This record gives sequence, structure tokens and C-alpha cells, in this order.
Amino acid sequence: MNIDGIPTRTLRAHPEQRVIDIIDQSRLPHVLHWVRVATLAEAAHAIRAMQVRGAPLIGATAAYGLAIALGEASDDGGLQQAFETLGATRPTAVNLHWALTRMRDRLQPLPAERRRAAAWQEAAAIAEEDVAQNAAIGQHGLDLLRRIARPNGTALNIMTHCNAGWLATVDWGTALSPVYAAHDAGLAVHVWASETRPRNQGLLTAWELAQHGVPYTAIADNAAGILIRDGRVDAVIVGADRIAANGDVANKVGTYLKALACADNGIPFYVAAPRSTLDFACPEGAAIPIEERDGDEFRLVHGLDARGVPSALHQLPARQSVANPAFDVTPARLVTALITERGVCPASRQGLLALYPEENHD
Amino acid sequence: MNIDGIPTRTLRAHPEQRVIDIIDQSRLPHVLHWVRVATLAEAAHAIRAMQVRGAPLIGATAAYGLAIALGEASDDGGLQQAFETLGATRPTAVNLHWALTRMRDRLQPLPAERRRAAAWQEAAAIAEEDVAQNAAIGQHGLDLLRRIARPNGTALNIMTHCNAGWLATVDWGTALSPVYAAHDAGLAVHVWASETRPRNQGLLTAWELAQHGVPYTAIADNAAGILIRDGRVDAVIVGADRIAANGDVANKVGTYLKALACADNGIPFYVAAPRSTLDFACPEGAAIPIEERDGDEFRLVHGLDARGVPSALHQLPARQSVANPAFDVTPARLVTALITERGVCPASRQGLLALYPEENHD
Repeated sequence: MNIDGIPTRTLRAHPEQRVIDIIDQSRLPHVLHWVRVATLAEAAHAIRAMQVRGAPLIGATAAYGLAIALGEASDDGGLQQAFETLGATRPTAVNLHWALTRMRDRLQPLPAERRRAAAWQEAAAIAEEDVAQNAAIGQHGLDLLRRIARPNGTALNIMTHCNAGWLATVDWGTALSPVYAAHDAGLAVHVWASETRPRNQGLLTAWELAQHGVPYTAIADNAAGILIRDGRVDAVIVGADRIAANGDVANKVGTYLKALACADNGIPFYVAAPRSTLDFACPEGAAIPIEERDGDEFRLVHGLDARGVPSALHQLPARQSVANPAFDVTPARLVTALITERGVCPASRQGLLALYPEENHD
Repeated sequence: MNIDGIPTRTLRAHPEQRVIDIIDQSRLPHVLHWVRVATLAEAAHAIRAMQVRGAPLIGATAAYGLAIALGEASDDGGLQQAFETLGATRPTAVNLHWALTRMRDRLQPLPAERRRAAAWQEAAAIAEEDVAQNAAIGQHGLDLLRRIARPNGTALNIMTHCNAGWLATVDWGTALSPVYAAHDAGLAVHVWASETRPRNQGLLTAWELAQHGVPYTAIADNAAGILIRDGRVDAVIVGADRIAANGDVANKVGTYLKALACADNGIPFYVAAPRSTLDFACPEGAAIPIEERDGDEFRLVHGLDARGVPSALHQLPARQSVANPAFDVTPARLVTALITERGVCPASRQGLLALYPEENHD
């Protein structure tokens, strides 16, 4: 995708220098600031502090983090230690563990002197596959959107939650990939971007849609219900942090409420995610660990001060009791269909196994 | 109720000076600031700019605003002009029109020289009735809470939305009145206070609960679904801005999403409101006008700056497109029961007419 008209990806690898550059998304949309990640500790911090966020981008960053760590470690224990450090950063998005496990499985059999180069190659492969898979999701989603397109050419109204656009991946995005595919194919689309408190990732969605010229309207999360009920939404498309084997979907907190509103009004609710988000080892949503994040995320408001400088501003006294679950689980029965790089399927074990028969071990 | 231990009401009338004092709720919870309202224009501004908010308090403020206006007007047209000016401030809460119509019906037959004193008396009667009705709502709601109280004495978890506490009324509140009644009766309660973007009235709820010593936890609106689904909520109680004759409920935007989550999980969803919120002339929710407020409410973040001074802070560029519906409609089928000053009834025409048989004109 483009930033200010210049093609870019969200993660730029420099294997020769053993570093990567990432966008500090905690400062968007106020400031576009690239951060250099040169150590394992910096990679773990970038994920934990949500400088990078979005399940696929977390996975790719963790893979590169492992490669960076191998350059730091002086002994053979470096791989396992980095695996554990990065794996402990965030519990819900399974892409993190998927990427780390893939890296370990690739590297462990190798002699130590070959691991470093192989790590950078494997991380690059993960990143490239993410781009290709998300592009495929876009085309499969576009097929769905064409079916509900209006004959008179008025824009399709797509609602999303959080940010599952190109900022959440290496490129293209998951939920927003069909939107970009539609826009690029000349199918008129308009996006309802839900603020997504407490971290306001909806503002990232607004920002990246604006970069691509896609019309959008920002809304408070609370407004989703009335808009869906009033017929002002044609489909909701969200990403996912983990999809269980039965089709239950863990995604950014608030997703479940939008799915309920869709079901109550007969509006399709789609979940777009690549293979790395599918957890066939997880039987159902109840088994997915839900991250509880620091209450200060809720207490602090990140805004611009009077001089236009981004700053964290206390909104609530520190003593106020806050609960801050970062994700919720949408039961498969509320999901109209899953969109993956292989196609569209029902949110069920049967549906997933039809797309991924190699996962059927019965 | 009390502020810092001192008994008070949210609206203090001074008939001899022809003014009222109100709390500027747009500055809470950061600063407690009383504002004097001495003119019709100031009364209209207080309602429109949400210095006072909450359907019952809007009604009482409008009644006093009419009394203030009669002191200003030099001719007989003052009553009708004030009626129209105040009536145009906000469209959804029916208490506004109920109070203004009651004032006009009381005053219009009187000779001009008797209107002013009668206006202050009638406004005081409206305020006193609000207090008494809300106290009655508290007792009826307490009966409901006793039925679901835990035998082991652990706290009942009540979720609410927006602020329907004493700040939203002249005293006691609607949705929070049963909570205060329970707390005062020794029944352990804990409140989930939903932030209520974009105006953050959940912080008012947190503030007033803290003033009364009721335990609470603040949450992002998005967290309501997972908390309800995880069995961490025993009941949701909200207020209302207008209840149609069929039991459909207009309330702060986001209410419908909480009602859906309750229905999906078998959790009771109660709506507490006094007679002045019931609109027997409105057949159903679809006929209720929904206020669209300025997008700057969403764009601007009101917080404390680095010196602890409340200020409005730009969060989003002014050019960003924003939709900002202030209310939504929860269909009667999702409402477990209505709690009014006369008791508890099903959210249906039959249920309402059983409590208010005088409204049955069939």
C-alpha cells in the first residue's frame, strides 16, 4: 500500500544490518514515526506495547524478532530463550505462536552457524506469504461483495471493527483487503470505521483508508447497533486474532456485539483471516486465552495538546477501578462465513476442513 | 444524594432571585462547577450543550427555564416563545416536552400577573415529583434485585450504560436508584460502569457511585459483551429517554447492543424510568426522533492537560467524516421488564396499561 503516495510495507527488513524498521502505530494517526528494532528486547517491547499490532503483523514481527535474537545470542540457548520471550508478549493472537513455532521447526535441525541466515530467510518467507495470502483474501472477499453490490452503483456500506487493514498485516490487510480490492476494481464502497476503545485502532483504519482514497465515516463503537438496525450497513467484515477449530472467533473486544447486531437484523457478518490465524488445535472459543491489559489504556487518553503535540492525557484518576479485556469471542453461529486465502467457508469444523483437508486427522 | 458528604440536589432553585443553579456536567468528573442560569437563553444553552443531561433533569430544567423566561418577557407572547425555544433544544428525551406541556397547560389559563409565581410553583412540583418517583423506582428495583441476590452474600454485579443516576435526575436517579436502594439496605452490589462514548457519561456514573461509596469498575463500551457472556453480570439496568406505547425504548446510543448481549445469554435487561419518560402517544420505537449530534463530540477528547486543567483536545483532524447518533432504540422484545414509580411491568402496551390504566383510551 501507499503512505502519502509512496509504496511501502508496514515492516521493512534489513538482513544485512540485522534490524527491521516498523511503524510505531501507537503514535498514529497523529504522527507517522518509523522505529528501528535491533534487539530481542526491542522486538518484544514493540509487540507488547502495541507499536505493532494486528495478528498477522505480530506474527511477522515475532519471526524477525527471532532472527534478530539469533544475532545477539552467543550460545546455543538463544533460540529457545527468544522463542519464550517473544511467545510471552501477547496471549490471544495465535499467529504469534504459529510464526515462532514455524521458525523453531525450521531452525532447530540446522547447525548453529547456518541458523542466522536461515532465520532471516524464513522470516522473509512468512512476511511474503502474509502479503500473498491477504491479497487472495481480498479477491475472495471481493466475490462476496459483488454479490451484494447495488445495481444502481451506490456505494456498499461495509462496517469494520478495530484495524484489520494493511497496518495490521505486512500488506493489504485481512478485513480491509476485500474493501481495497473492491475500490481498486471500481466497485463503490464506503466504510464505517468503529473507534475501538480503549486503544482507538479505528482511527488507524480511518487513516489508512484515507491514504488509499476509500470513503469512510468514523463512529463511536456504541453507534454500530443503530446503523445496522437502520439498514445503513450492508455487511460487517472483521479480522481475527484466533479462530478455533469449530469456527468460534476471538477478535478485538466489541466484535461480539457487532455480530449480535448483524444476526438480529439479517446482515452478513464475515471474518477474514489467513491460515496463520486458524488454530485447529483449539477446539472452541472457550479455550482461547483472553488478554487482560493494563487499565491505564482506558484511563489515559492519547491526544494532541494545544500545540498539536501528541501526548498521553489523564482522563480518569489513577485510583479508579478499570477492567480491560482486549478481546472477546464471537460464537461460530453468529458468523455468516469465514474468508481465508483459500476461499470462503462456513464457520464450522466441517467448513474449515473442506478448505484445509490436510488438517483432518480423524 | 451527597457530594463530598454534603447533601445536595442536582438543581437548586432560588425563586426569589428568579434563577437556578446547576452542575456543569460537561466538566465532571474533572471539576465540580456550579453554574447560575438566569435567562431563557442560558437555560436553553444548558440543555443543548449538555451542561444538564439525563431525561428527567432535562425536563425539570426546562420547567424552571420557562419560569425564568416569564420573568424576562414583557408581553403575553413570552410563554409560547419560551415553550418553543426550550422545546427545540433536544429532540429525543420526551421528558422535555412532557414538562413544557405540563407547564403551559398549568399557566395558559391564568391571568398574566399570576403566571410567574405559578410557574415557579409548578416547576418545583415537577422537581419534587421527580425525586419521589425516582425513590419509588429504587424500591421496586430493589425488590427485583433481592430476588436474584446471591445466598452467599457476594456482590450482585449490575451493569449500566451512560449515566442514569442522580446526576441525570433531580435526585436518586432512575437506573441507579435500585443500586443505591440496595446498597443502603445492606445488599452488596458492584456496578460495571460503561464509558459511553462519545460523551463519556459513564465517568459521571463512576464519579457519583464513588460519592456514595458503591463499588464499581469502569469499562470500555466494547467490553460489555464478554463480561455478560462470561457470567460476570447478573443484570443490566439502564434509564430511558423515551419509552413508546409498545415498550420500545430509546436510550443512549449503545443500549441496544447491551440488550442484545443480555438476550443472547439469558441475563435480565431492565429499563427504569418515571412516568414522564413514557410516551403513550408514540406507537413504537421507529417513530421516536433520534438526535444526530455534532461530530466534534467524537473528534474532541475532553481531558486534563499536563497541568491538570480540563481542556478540549483534538483527537481527530477536523476534516474526518464522523456520524454521531446520540441514541438508539431497543425493541421491547429485548427488555425483560420496565421499572416505573408504580411498579414493574412487561415492556408491552398491555404491561404499561396495567400500570397506567388511565392511559387506556380504547
